[in-house]
Amino acid sequence: MNKKIKIGLLGSGTVGTGVIKVLLENVHEITQKIGREVAITKVLVRDLNKKRKIPSTCTIIDDFEEIINDDSIDIVVEVMGGENPAKEYMLRALEAGKHVVTANKDVVAKYGKLMFEAAEKHKVDFMFEASVGGGIPIITPLKQCLTANKILEVMGIVNGTTNYMLTKMTNEKLDYHTVLTEAQAKGYAESDPIADVGGLDAARKIAILSSIAFNTRVHLDDVYVEGITAITPEDIEYARELGYVIKLLAIAKDVPAYGIDVRVHPALVPNTHPLASVNDVFNAIFVKGNAVGETMFYGRGAGEGPTASAVVADIIDISRNIVHKTSGKISCTCFEDKMICPVEKSISAYYVRLLVKDEPGVLATIAGAFGNNQVSLNSVIQKRRVNGCAEIVLITHEVAQEHLAKASAIIKNLKDVTEIRNIIRVEAQRK
Amino acid sequence: MNKKIKIGLLGSGTVGTGVIKVLLENVHEITQKIGREVAITKVLVRDLNKKRKIPSTCTIIDDFEEIINDDSIDIVVEVMGGENPAKEYMLRALEAGKHVVTANKDVVAKYGKLMFEAAEKHKVDFMFEASVGGGIPIITPLKQCLTANKILEVMGIVNGTTNYMLTKMTNEKLDYHTVLTEAQAKGYAESDPIADVGGLDAARKIAILSSIAFNTRVHLDDVYVEGITAITPEDIEYARELGYVIKLLAIAKDVPAYGIDVRVHPALVPNTHPLASVNDVFNAIFVKGNAVGETMFYGRGAGEGPTASAVVADIIDISRNIVHKTSGKISCTCFEDKMICPVEKSISAYYVRLLVKDEPGVLATIAGAFGNNQVSLNSVIQKRRVNGCAEIVLITHEVAQEHLAKASAIIKNLKDVTEIRNIIRVEAQRK
Ligand SMILES: NC(=O)c1ccc[n+]([C@@H]2O[C@H](COP(=O)([O-])OP(=O)(O)OC[C@H]3O[C@@H](n4cnc5c(N)ncnc54)[C@H](OP(=O)(O)O)[C@@H]3O)[C@@H](O)[C@H]2O)c1
Ligand SMILES: NC(=O)c1ccc[n+]([C@@H]2O[C@H](COP(=O)([O-])OP(=O)(O)OC[C@H]3O[C@@H](n4cnc5c(N)ncnc54)[C@H](OP(=O)(O)O)[C@@H]3O)[C@@H](O)[C@H]2O)c1
Repeated sequence: MNKKIKIGLLGSGTVGTGVIKVLLENVHEITQKIGREVAITKVLVRDLNKKRKIPSTCTIIDDFEEIINDDSIDIVVEVMGGENPAKEYMLRALEAGKHVVTANKDVVAKYGKLMFEAAEKHKVDFMFEASVGGGIPIITPLKQCLTANKILEVMGIVNGTTNYMLTKMTNEKLDYHTVLTEAQAKGYAESDPIADVGGLDAARKIAILSSIAFNTRVHLDDVYVEGITAITPEDIEYARELGYVIKLLAIAKDVPAYGIDVRVHPALVPNTHPLASVNDVFNAIFVKGNAVGETMFYGRGAGEGPTASAVVADIIDISRNIVHKTSGKISCTCFEDKMICPVEKSISAYYVRLLVKDEPGVLATIAGAFGNNQVSLNSVIQKRRVNGCAEIVLITHEVAQEHLAKASAIIKNLKDVTEIRNIIRVEAQRK
Repeated sequence: MNKKIKIGLLGSGTVGTGVIKVLLENVHEITQKIGREVAITKVLVRDLNKKRKIPSTCTIIDDFEEIINDDSIDIVVEVMGGENPAKEYMLRALEAGKHVVTANKDVVAKYGKLMFEAAEKHKVDFMFEASVGGGIPIITPLKQCLTANKILEVMGIVNGTTNYMLTKMTNEKLDYHTVLTEAQAKGYAESDPIADVGGLDAARKIAILSSIAFNTRVHLDDVYVEGITAITPEDIEYARELGYVIKLLAIAKDVPAYGIDVRVHPALVPNTHPLASVNDVFNAIFVKGNAVGETMFYGRGAGEGPTASAVVADIIDISRNIVHKTSGKISCTCFEDKMICPVEKSISAYYVRLLVKDEPGVLATIAGAFGNNQVSLNSVIQKRRVNGCAEIVLITHEVAQEHLAKASAIIKNLKDVTEIRNIIRVEAQRK
């Protein structure tokens, strides 16, 4: 057998520890699959004094120069997180002719182009399966298995924290704050949860997925983002009565007239849709192609083992390339330059919950205001009394966001309307 | 741009027509992704006189020699089906240094080894994504994306015909024969449906999947097979009351003491399991790995577009290899030689429906007979009167098949037992 393939690991937190474990535990199979041994020789950390379970064959270091200047290292695996210095380290590694694997959605979403170009220039591989969907294979399926298709739509539950919270709110009828506190206590949500609950984490992931799916660069700023903070137990209960669950969806569609419609927001999903039964910390990504129709990829979106599964798969892929001298084959696939669809033009159905005066004719006035703005109603579904007012829930037909926005601005100011309590999109309805 | 990559297509039925369509419709994207044009130049059929929609750039032929002797053809795509002459044609193509793509589960399940060896010897690619799960990417995910794992279990709904039938029996409370007749009328079931309803089609697919998942050759004969012909509306109704649906499952597990436990049979699946909501002609494959945990791959398991999506993805993969001179990299991954677990040792829970004398003490006698044979009961759930007898439904705890078989042989002969009406495995319970 030939000389070992050597890895420099940047970070040994949750994911780094998982990578070390998986490479050790499955060493027999992995070596067979590659045809050569793979070994982590150096591990970069911030704090040399922390106690860690790292095999004695790895040297623990706190200076990246010891990795970049080590010619024996073939692959740099970045699992330290954050934009800086992760981005700089990866770029330097690529420029030094080292292959790079990362789980870092922040960097891939923001600096993917830079990375791909560097990889291409230096004829090395840059892989990032773990950056979206944790252990779920989704990057390779999009880059390789669904290539025969024009992709029409990618839609997924890609943030485990918010999915856990919404599942708990749904099953236990708890409110947002109670559930957040509990998720933080359990370690499912960070002390500063804003990237998760505000939708930024999902936005990064859909930027990555849609760039690959639609062969065009989708920037983080292109993604319209709404988080889950405004979702109440009442909305969840109304949705349930109507046959829906509320999920935080990341959506990207190729809209012929306007370009890529890409957004993250909570949405009512019909119970019968496969995404509706994706609960807790599970993730799932639904992909629709013009040949294959509907497909879905489901699994654990985070955690030590699942994320390491994806990172190590990339390591194996790269290693096979090293063994067969086939590195640097598929990198950036963004050969198109598509427009981004303005959110105003994006089409959805909507759930609208209103508090109105409980008087005859109010409903007709509201329906009229919607109608005057090209919003047609699918159903007016619930009505209960709240503080002397009537609560109404409407579901609209599909409509451009600009019309819904205009209608609701007018309705809000009607004298019979006390309050628009919530507006949530309704997605994933089968046509 | 370099010279075109040329394809000889064997067969232009459902799948062949789809392949032609997808290559035409998505030509722009496909050419970009490969970096070179791909064109079907010859199409082999049986009957030259049939009317077909085939572009004028393709020559229609009925003699394979015109393909095998054509040095300009790089890739042979076999979508004619059946064992012979498909197998021979593919072997000859590989030996002639042509890459091969096939959708033919019969040949892959039975002669996979032969094909891999020929491909390896002649340094060409042999790909077969469409042979399992239609459009669902599952072969590449197993060969490439989940390689970091020891696979513990593969379990799926891989036959669309039977899934359509069971879904219809469940939703419309129809019996097996009514549903079969309707499925035949709709073209979902063949006039001779035995390969589907008898489980052979699913057996071929699980033989293919388990060979890859467990890195060992699993032969068709290794698969224990039961079809769906004995499933009645009563079983489906009892299952429903108990919170289960009945699905035809293809299962393969790596059982440390005994080897690969591989089987196809109907099973009760809990409503909460992701496979339970896979309905109609959809397929789904659930894969459990020691790092990734649970993953699932879902989509259309057959049909022109989905199957063509998988075939063309393989064509693109091979073409990229041709362009980058990286052919023949991963072929057979069966580097282990694992035992096959005898069905007697395979562990399941069981649903048992019995007709017994409606007398005191009968249940105790039956429970005793189970207990004496190491079968412990989870629950005794239903009881209704049928022709003066009582119908009982039992669910056992998990037990080796040999114990269940022994217990039921004894129980059948008890004087208080009129009849064992059905025995169905219960699978996919979360521990
Ligand atoms: N956790 C998941 O489930 C998951 C899932 C998918 C993707 N990811 C991504 O994977 C990456 C790692 O996540 P994680 O959860 O493993 O993070 P983590 O537990 O916080 O671990 C980070 C590791 O990186 C080291 N590190 C951080 N900054 C460093 C610096 N400037 N120089 C040297 N070492 C540094 C830390 O060193 P010390 O140990 O000395 O502090 C620690 O070992 C992130 O990009 C994350 O988004 C994580
Ligand atoms: N249909 C699906 O949804 C699906 C899904 C997954 C996998 N598959 C697999 O794909 C393969 C093709 O299926 P299909 O449904 O497309 O079959 P099909 O509709 O019956 O088409 C078969 C084609 O092959 C030609 N052919 C058959 N035997 C031949 C021979 N000896 N010499 C020359 N041409 C011959 C036929 O020619 P004529 O047109 O002249 O009769 C026909 O064009 C099978 O292996 C099947 O298991 C099918």
